[in-house]
Amino acid sequence: MSASDVPMRQRIEEYISKLQDDIVGAFEKLDPDAPPFKRDSWLRPQGGRGLSSVFQAPPPPPGAEAVPKETVLEKAGVNISVVHGMLPPPAIKQMRADHSSIPDVQSAVPFFAAGLSLVIHPRNPHAPTVHANYRYFEITEEPTEEEAAQGKPGKLIAWWFGGGSDLTPSYLYEEDAEHFHRTIRAACDAHGADLYPAFKKWCDEYFYIPHRGESRGIGGIFFDDLCDEPHKRFASDDAARPKTAEEIFAFVRAAGDAFVPSYIPILERRYKTPSTEHERRWQLVRRGRYVEFNLVYDRGTKFGLMTPGARIESILMSLPETARWEYMSELGTEAESREEKLVEVLKNPREWA
Amino acid sequence: MSASDVPMRQRIEEYISKLQDDIVGAFEKLDPDAPPFKRDSWLRPQGGRGLSSVFQAPPPPPGAEAVPKETVLEKAGVNISVVHGMLPPPAIKQMRADHSSIPDVQSAVPFFAAGLSLVIHPRNPHAPTVHANYRYFEITEEPTEEEAAQGKPGKLIAWWFGGGSDLTPSYLYEEDAEHFHRTIRAACDAHGADLYPAFKKWCDEYFYIPHRGESRGIGGIFFDDLCDEPHKRFASDDAARPKTAEEIFAFVRAAGDAFVPSYIPILERRYKTPSTEHERRWQLVRRGRYVEFNLVYDRGTKFGLMTPGARIESILMSLPETARWEYMSELGTEAESREEKLVEVLKNPREWA
Repeated sequence: MSASDVPMRQRIEEYISKLQDDIVGAFEKLDPDAPPFKRDSWLRPQGGRGLSSVFQAPPPPPGAEAVPKETVLEKAGVNISVVHGMLPPPAIKQMRADHSSIPDVQSAVPFFAAGLSLVIHPRNPHAPTVHANYRYFEITEEPTEEEAAQGKPGKLIAWWFGGGSDLTPSYLYEEDAEHFHRTIRAACDAHGADLYPAFKKWCDEYFYIPHRGESRGIGGIFFDDLCDEPHKRFASDDAARPKTAEEIFAFVRAAGDAFVPSYIPILERRYKTPSTEHERRWQLVRRGRYVEFNLVYDRGTKFGLMTPGARIESILMSLPETARWEYMSELGTEAESREEKLVEVLKNPREWA
Repeated sequence: MSASDVPMRQRIEEYISKLQDDIVGAFEKLDPDAPPFKRDSWLRPQGGRGLSSVFQAPPPPPGAEAVPKETVLEKAGVNISVVHGMLPPPAIKQMRADHSSIPDVQSAVPFFAAGLSLVIHPRNPHAPTVHANYRYFEITEEPTEEEAAQGKPGKLIAWWFGGGSDLTPSYLYEEDAEHFHRTIRAACDAHGADLYPAFKKWCDEYFYIPHRGESRGIGGIFFDDLCDEPHKRFASDDAARPKTAEEIFAFVRAAGDAFVPSYIPILERRYKTPSTEHERRWQLVRRGRYVEFNLVYDRGTKFGLMTPGARIESILMSLPETARWEYMSELGTEAESREEKLVEVLKNPREWA
């Protein structure tokens, strides 16, 4: 049986499971003295399952005054979920804007969604936070009696991939930003020269905090609705980009596989950097902005919080262990300070690769 | 000139200015060694002014490893604003639901808004956070040439008062909850026996975090749209409640004046309570929930963040200095623990007065 005889649902599930193991393994290898990630599998009553792999720096035991030994990571989650169910007509209606193959339906429609989502908040203020997410979505007709009897889904109506990866430093190291973007760009370029420029721009637009007039971080790539139909982010049908399910899945695997080489070398060279209370304070202020973006603007988070029965702990796993808010903070405003240099690049996104 | 010859706009502005002074003075008196609140006045380019009074525990100086001397408060803001401008038709349309005197307009309408807003986050985990807000709103016709020449507003179309005060402990002290509610209830009862029951219920409904299935705190009162028209929270026109502008302003002053006696005695008896790292950790987890409510649900915050040119620092002043998120935290879940006792009452609001 060739790879393409296996249903995409199954191939995706296998891929994200392996990617989750690889990523968690890379972090555990980097900090062998830290407690391992906590694996936590769950079932969705309405259909599907997930596996959360979460790291939290151990809190001090009750009554203790001493600070526990410092770990490389402060809080991190690498989660996969594979779920299915019924989508109500308003949700379908929204999807029709980007997927002309979806008919105008009056009743709920079966869907399947599988994805990997991760957020890594290191402890050291010189080591950047990173986020990545790769996902696959299908909507189908109701299965026929024969399909249902065989446990198969109904006929495919529409499918698409989405994802991306982006970096959020507290202190700007240009060589880190360049390494991150170059690694991702190389993964993209092998699957179409138009991918990186389009998805880098999309990332800068998506991870933007309007009320602060700044980006959440120094970007990366972001994409959604990638399928065999025309795509709003590619003006021409001749754009150099993957078009079949097979080609797009190959690109998504390349992008997913680029996560470890895009980030681990940065973490390795920063996590031991000596740091001050002042730098820690600025890191926590930046984490406050991260919270603001995720709770106020992030579509996935907002959608999750509004979904009855959603797994809140998985949705809010992205939040940092600690965040800080200062009124009229002078941090980030002093000319030529390292803090101000970060703010400058958040207000004026740069090309890094 | 009797009080009622003075326009309500001016009387409100005078009242909230004095209330701000009294409240800030009470906190400064309680902790004379702490730095004073920072007064920060601002002008709104589109019309109006404000005065922020903000306290922040001093951060450690750059490079220092030592923790600075502990202050009673960790972060606090007591702000007033008095603004005017033009409201666009969609905003007016929303207000018509509660104010039948407002006509169905096609163009922008002048408004005036004045209010005091405060959030106090003490340092000690045994001392509760408190929030209060009292506000007055007017919409008017465009001033005639004669009115404009005299600097007067146009004819009054509608006016109303809103406000409330609520307590958010990390550890439940029943006597504190009772003192807070009883003090507020007494202020309400003097102006109508139906006020406290209606506004206590409204407060429990408003400060609710659906995705957590719990209230932000142990409540207090919340009200809006209080004017001489029928009110959706009072089934009968015979409800024992203030009905004229004069009567409602007297009630609002009583509620505002009750802030110091409702809260300061609680702070005084809790701020020196010995506390552990474990208790501090739980306090910071609760502050995370406070952030979740304010960024995801609070109407004032959401409206502010979406308003171009809004003063973001004033809007987000309500956020705590530090907040914490733990994945699948065991805190609050252990039966009979003090943390679990708080969660119990947040999931099942009680009658306290």
